[in-house]
Amino acid sequence: MASISNGIPEKTIERLSEYRRTLLSCHQQGITHIFSHVLAGIHGITAVQVRRDLMLIGFSSDTKKGYDVKVLIDFISNILDSENPVNVAIIGMGHLGQAITRYFNSKGLKLRITASFDVDPAKIGTTIEEIPCYPMEQFEQEVEDQDISIVVVSCPTKEAPRLVVPIINAGIKGVLNFTSTRLNFPQGIYVENYDITTLLEKVAYCVKEAEENNNN
Amino acid sequence: MASISNGIPEKTIERLSEYRRTLLSCHQQGITHIFSHVLAGIHGITAVQVRRDLMLIGFSSDTKKGYDVKVLIDFISNILDSENPVNVAIIGMGHLGQAITRYFNSKGLKLRITASFDVDPAKIGTTIEEIPCYPMEQFEQEVEDQDISIVVVSCPTKEAPRLVVPIINAGIKGVLNFTSTRLNFPQGIYVENYDITTLLEKVAYCVKEAEENNNN
Repeated sequence: MASISNGIPEKTIERLSEYRRTLLSCHQQGITHIFSHVLAGIHGITAVQVRRDLMLIGFSSDTKKGYDVKVLIDFISNILDSENPVNVAIIGMGHLGQAITRYFNSKGLKLRITASFDVDPAKIGTTIEEIPCYPMEQFEQEVEDQDISIVVVSCPTKEAPRLVVPIINAGIKGVLNFTSTRLNFPQGIYVENYDITTLLEKVAYCVKEAEENNNN
Repeated sequence: MASISNGIPEKTIERLSEYRRTLLSCHQQGITHIFSHVLAGIHGITAVQVRRDLMLIGFSSDTKKGYDVKVLIDFISNILDSENPVNVAIIGMGHLGQAITRYFNSKGLKLRITASFDVDPAKIGTTIEEIPCYPMEQFEQEVEDQDISIVVVSCPTKEAPRLVVPIINAGIKGVLNFTSTRLNFPQGIYVENYDITTLLEKVAYCVKEAEENNNN
């Protein structure tokens, strides 16, 4: 559960994605080298954790000048990215779907949102952030035509369960589900269920704990 | 890093939030008892993990009928929730801010979004999802008047760094940051930096890994 097929823990995968964003930003600023403790400081973790993560993916570097930013970006990209661009569809083009689309396609990643789907006639046939919005009836056909392998589910929670069968039938391989309903899929389809409420409840809990500790 | 002040791991806190949502849904459906393996199945984890999480918070129950749903909801709420409602503000009322507001205030939780802030004159002075939108200049005053302790940062990434000082000055205790810029705060302010890109990159990685394993 906590680790993925080849033994790299899920949390390491998440941090690699985060390190890469920081490194890309460093690279844009003309920074060529970065020490593990600097990278660690930016991410609020220890240098040991950074070095452990990079050891897990087999990265080693000259530590006198720190990590070579460009080399490390390429190394992480080689781990995280597919060789070819991966096409993603959004199901549910409400505020969350639009926010994700806007946010994501501006980043120049190997992942790109190429299609969106909705049941609202006011949205179907329009382009939102240059992404065409199709009716759900065309889902399987468009997934095939556009070689889409990942979907983001950002429809209303009560609509989510009825998406499971179309997603399976269309041959989707990965699902990122933002609704409050957990979606379960057969083996071979990776699903990440992420309810934003969880994050906010966690922050609230940490605030509460800190206050209680201060009062003791 | 992985555990919070009182020794409950962060992942357990996240799962408790998820268990509670499932239990609330069971309760609404009139289900009075649930076995650990059923709860585990819904969440795609093992029954051992569920029992370990509940042991960590000191919950024990008659296992013949499973957990009493209502009792477990109250027990988890007692761990996660503050005694009084906690007020939350959204900074940045674009699509993401509106999605979070709509999504969150419908849930009847102890956390409630009471104010939003933006720099866009078209938004300031309006109510969005019944939440008034104030100019950023009023941030400190409104935080004090409304006793707001948590903020959600959902503004454009490039605007985020300049929010750090106002957030500190206003006495905010917890920050949930959805932008691509990590925000660092002094001790005493809990921050959860969460870039949605991380989740999508993780899903993409898992899909890629599964494909490579199939090809071998």
